Amino acid sequence: MKKFMGKNFLLQTKTAKKLYHNHAANMPIFDYHCHISPKEIAEDKQFENITQIWLYGDHYKWRGMRTNGVDEKYCTGNASDWEKFEKWAETVPMAIRNPLFHWTHLELKKFFGITKILSPATAKEIWDGCNAKLQTPEYSCRNIIRMANVHTICTTDDPIDSLEYHQQIKEDGFEVKVLPAWRPDKAMMVENHEAFNQYVDKLGEAADVEITTFADFMDALDNRHQFFHDNGCRLSDHGVETVIAEDYTEEEISAIFSKVRKGGDLAEGEVAKFKSCMLYEFGIMDHSRGWAQQFHIGALRNNSTRLFNKLGPDTGFDSIGDFEVGKPLSKLLNRLDLENQLAKTILYNLNPCDNELLATMIGNFQDGSVAGKMQFGSGWWFLDQKDGMEKQMNALSNLGLLSRFVGMLTDSRSFLSYTRHEYFRRTLCNLLGKDVENGEIPNDMELLGKMVEDICFNNAKNYFNFP
Amino acid sequence: MKKFMGKNFLLQTKTAKKLYHNHAANMPIFDYHCHISPKEIAEDKQFENITQIWLYGDHYKWRGMRTNGVDEKYCTGNASDWEKFEKWAETVPMAIRNPLFHWTHLELKKFFGITKILSPATAKEIWDGCNAKLQTPEYSCRNIIRMANVHTICTTDDPIDSLEYHQQIKEDGFEVKVLPAWRPDKAMMVENHEAFNQYVDKLGEAADVEITTFADFMDALDNRHQFFHDNGCRLSDHGVETVIAEDYTEEEISAIFSKVRKGGDLAEGEVAKFKSCMLYEFGIMDHSRGWAQQFHIGALRNNSTRLFNKLGPDTGFDSIGDFEVGKPLSKLLNRLDLENQLAKTILYNLNPCDNELLATMIGNFQDGSVAGKMQFGSGWWFLDQKDGMEKQMNALSNLGLLSRFVGMLTDSRSFLSYTRHEYFRRTLCNLLGKDVENGEIPNDMELLGKMVEDICFNNAKNYFNFP
Amino acid sequence: MKKFMGKNFLLQTKTAKKLYHNHAANMPIFDYHCHISPKEIAEDKQFENITQIWLYGDHYKWRGMRTNGVDEKYCTGNASDWEKFEKWAETVPMAIRNPLFHWTHLELKKFFGITKILSPATAKEIWDGCNAKLQTPEYSCRNIIRMANVHTICTTDDPIDSLEYHQQIKEDGFEVKVLPAWRPDKAMMVENHEAFNQYVDKLGEAADVEITTFADFMDALDNRHQFFHDNGCRLSDHGVETVIAEDYTEEEISAIFSKVRKGGDLAEGEVAKFKSCMLYEFGIMDHSRGWAQQFHIGALRNNSTRLFNKLGPDTGFDSIGDFEVGKPLSKLLNRLDLENQLAKTILYNLNPCDNELLATMIGNFQDGSVAGKMQFGSGWWFLDQKDGMEKQMNALSNLGLLSRFVGMLTDSRSFLSYTRHEYFRRTLCNLLGKDVENGEIPNDMELLGKMVEDICFNNAKNYFNFP
Repeated sequence: MKKFMGKNFLLQTKTAKKLYHNHAANMPIFDYHCHISPKEIAEDKQFENITQIWLYGDHYKWRGMRTNGVDEKYCTGNASDWEKFEKWAETVPMAIRNPLFHWTHLELKKFFGITKILSPATAKEIWDGCNAKLQTPEYSCRNIIRMANVHTICTTDDPIDSLEYHQQIKEDGFEVKVLPAWRPDKAMMVENHEAFNQYVDKLGEAADVEITTFADFMDALDNRHQFFHDNGCRLSDHGVETVIAEDYTEEEISAIFSKVRKGGDLAEGEVAKFKSCMLYEFGIMDHSRGWAQQFHIGALRNNSTRLFNKLGPDTGFDSIGDFEVGKPLSKLLNRLDLENQLAKTILYNLNPCDNELLATMIGNFQDGSVAGKMQFGSGWWFLDQKDGMEKQMNALSNLGLLSRFVGMLTDSRSFLSYTRHEYFRRTLCNLLGKDVENGEIPNDMELLGKMVEDICFNNAKNYFNFP
Repeated sequence: MKKFMGKNFLLQTKTAKKLYHNHAANMPIFDYHCHISPKEIAEDKQFENITQIWLYGDHYKWRGMRTNGVDEKYCTGNASDWEKFEKWAETVPMAIRNPLFHWTHLELKKFFGITKILSPATAKEIWDGCNAKLQTPEYSCRNIIRMANVHTICTTDDPIDSLEYHQQIKEDGFEVKVLPAWRPDKAMMVENHEAFNQYVDKLGEAADVEITTFADFMDALDNRHQFFHDNGCRLSDHGVETVIAEDYTEEEISAIFSKVRKGGDLAEGEVAKFKSCMLYEFGIMDHSRGWAQQFHIGALRNNSTRLFNKLGPDTGFDSIGDFEVGKPLSKLLNRLDLENQLAKTILYNLNPCDNELLATMIGNFQDGSVAGKMQFGSGWWFLDQKDGMEKQMNALSNLGLLSRFVGMLTDSRSFLSYTRHEYFRRTLCNLLGKDVENGEIPNDMELLGKMVEDICFNNAKNYFNFP
Repeated sequence: MKKFMGKNFLLQTKTAKKLYHNHAANMPIFDYHCHISPKEIAEDKQFENITQIWLYGDHYKWRGMRTNGVDEKYCTGNASDWEKFEKWAETVPMAIRNPLFHWTHLELKKFFGITKILSPATAKEIWDGCNAKLQTPEYSCRNIIRMANVHTICTTDDPIDSLEYHQQIKEDGFEVKVLPAWRPDKAMMVENHEAFNQYVDKLGEAADVEITTFADFMDALDNRHQFFHDNGCRLSDHGVETVIAEDYTEEEISAIFSKVRKGGDLAEGEVAKFKSCMLYEFGIMDHSRGWAQQFHIGALRNNSTRLFNKLGPDTGFDSIGDFEVGKPLSKLLNRLDLENQLAKTILYNLNPCDNELLATMIGNFQDGSVAGKMQFGSGWWFLDQKDGMEKQMNALSNLGLLSRFVGMLTDSRSFLSYTRHEYFRRTLCNLLGKDVENGEIPNDMELLGKMVEDICFNNAKNYFNFP
């Protein structure tokens, strides 16, 4: 019987242990996609207690608590931090087999040296222990990042963002690279003309462009794209139910843009045309400046209108959808490729049913220019757990080249989530170790050690090639 | 090498064995969804031979036999009971790795103490052995139910059912609760106006309501819902290809109802509107009386018209479909939730591709009012086998809280199927045992033992809260 | 630790080893679906070097190389054979966990006795070793086929093919049966009227029928079908994104045919009607002559227009699609079944999401006339790897009868691919062995040995029943 959360957690073979401890554990972290706040890094924020760093803003944990019958008051409401923590501590033992259970104890161990199981019985002791540490300077944001051996962080930013915090962090001389990533979702959301128009106005200000026509709009976006580039950005990101790739003409798009600017409601077909155009145009921009583009495909968001109205988006009411993925995605990528303007691309799926589709879709556009130009992204969101990561890596292995994989990212809003890289690395080493010991791959530790180091760090570093 | 069907069947670790034998094996059975006949329980039916209890009406076995090249005569035709059994005995060894192989031998062992493999060589001996026992009073319906340690049974009943057998069983003082469940599929089938109108007429009689308008129709249904409630029903069930959730107005529905009552053929869009309305209205009814609702999603039924015309529905010609599930399901649940009228809900899928979708869909509507209010149902029909159950439990574990799962049900037409609970329990304990021994969950037998007991029985008992 | 590619490669238990070595290894190969060239067999072609037999025309390897950053010049371009091999040798170590890695080393071992890992370090030695052998008469096409213990080969042929090479092979007295299979995809491709009309003209010539009307067209096809039949063909094949089964009338089809013959562009609906008709008519033909029909469902082809324009189809730019499969497939099969004209049928899927759908779809039409009349085909193309084969066999086992499975086929363009049967057989035996040792199936080596032999060879031989 193996000890829970021991040194060899998730490592079931000798080879897995060797690969992890000799090749994976000490690689720095290249966290190329996350949602942490650059402001908090700039300010080197200090958290008062474990609830603030753990439960504020973590919709994963809220979902778990609600499922466990915990009232909203203790999730997003006005209960005290201790009360919230108490309810979380009640939920943890019920979360056995959920990644929350592993993440919780990995974070307690890595950052606080705590190896007890969080439960009502240990809640007070763990609360006190964590809080005492969090209040010391050693647990400022930046020091937590340092503790985790992070090399580079890419945040997720709107084109209108001033990037002032990224600039400040750089000027401060923080040795970890904290770079922006370009997420222009709002520039596509013409279905809500009010919100879209407000956004366009702000964009005009940010870009110092008076936006009347669609051409002005694209100018403003291109200005901001250049500004992001000047601030070290080399990576975009799009969140879509599915890629949309309808046919359209420039005239149609201009007309649609004018219509929405005048406050007109668009027909479904018009919205689809506009989004199709924007995804294409963003692809052209990304290619022109040598960026990589990411597509996060398949989330069905804001399912509970009742709680959306109270709490807004990203509060735990999203789920996995079943959208048609193949044809439109192929159409967009093909159009860009046909014009020799297809940027490096990472495709993520939320529905594991699309694993094999995406893992083969990337193969259609590997053009030999860069090893692993097209990437099938690591298990995303709900799939960011052992099963999900194994399925993603198995699909990638069977249908592409695992060796060229750019590996893990946290996608997290929390500074304690870097242990997800550890989780991923253990899972990776375990897969390879099992294969070696089963005689399915050669016992060539030089080859495999390098492969592990590459997937943990080198591949991403080379792929993104940040300035 | 482990013995086939031994005491530790499916239990691969010491921990699994402990969990099963100490915590699972002796829990009573709470069979909240099945298709057995209340009439046969009321009459305490005695079967003449094993063919009658095993092969009459079991479309699973017929499918296996047909696949094995057995003529219809021996499945649903006029061959003798012995001939049918003989053909089944020929099929069983060819069914290795199919759940039929396990179910057959679990049932032979549990109910008849037979540990031989059924095959042409053992057919006569097993036939004689089973039949001798079946003809004794110890093998009446009720005694078989007792033998299986059943606590509660929910049958599946049409709103027009008199529930006389349920009443009789109760009056008889049978110590096992046998409750009705409300399955109003026929009240939605407006696509066939003839059958629908006949049904509406019978419903009117049953409810003692003269049905002219849609409002009358709903009154009649509500009367019957109350009648079911008064007879202990707390659970509804809907079989749908996929949930339909089109927009509609009350006027439209009234008009559609009038049209169909006059014998008019409905357009596809009208059928969809009507069904959308009914699913919503049934949801409101279920919530108003504190029931749970079940949705069985994804069956593609009656694929062989040739054999449907001969044999009718539920005779082995159904399969797994690929329907759009996410958006319409979310729309219906959201509408009910927005009005604070979303009942406890269990979602079952027939296509395993929808496992992750459903396991995250429930998370959108967990409102903290009841632990596990929204449930992802156990592997259904074709998925009711070890692989299917493991995938369902893994999805639920990774994306929700396994601890809050209401667990297994037989969904069966046979009195011998209670061993499926044993099958499920062994599978559950095996999953947990493996995790413990791999160090993926703590070796806390108190916590895990309770979790097993809850999933086997307590969760369902508390969830349904039958009178 | 097990040795890579050792004698017991992929065989993890004693039982698996026994099953493989005693029952699987020596069974002849019945390769009922592949894409090798009958011309090369007729000519008993001799390859000059390993690049010619391995890398010419193998789009699997090209995809791997492109993913590894290899320029097109070394895939399909004008680099020398040695340069191409060198680039392939660089790619192989990066292909760890991809089936290419296993296939490569199985082929090197089986046909050339080479057990070294192909890499830049061993490239020259392996190049020389293979080439020396390939240039001897022992390595002619036919001798390679003999070396692999092949009993029967079905190629893939267009209805207009003269079958001269099949005839020549037969006349030569080659002891391996090399039979044609009927693949009439081009006879359905009305969406491109130019190509279609050229095709119809050639078909008319081949059948010696003047094709004016749709009836003429069907006559010509029926003539060719009979011609194929006379040349030993008993098997058809259709490659479709998804089966199309729209309603149509004879008049509509005649009109559509006339329109396309006059060079008219068809509407999408017309194309769909025409294809629906053709799939039905081909089904009728196949049934009338006692053939089996195959459907390969789910490929999204020719995704890169840029490289399609350069290289044409089947060059490594295809992937897995997500099409609606269930309803139209059921509709076609049901229509044929209703008329008692449903031929033996094998369904293959490219998206593993459809495994369970197909594995249950076949059950709808098992009519008891022939054991395993309806087949769920072995892991196809991208799924032709250990994971894919295991998933296919698990789905088939759980939802049908594995014992009645007609087993493996290479689907390959290369004469060295027969080791894929070995790969399949090891995987099959390993699955059964594990089940036995886990006590999930009885340790009955007589039953299991026969089952293995049947799946490896006997089932296919009996099923196709070639003349």
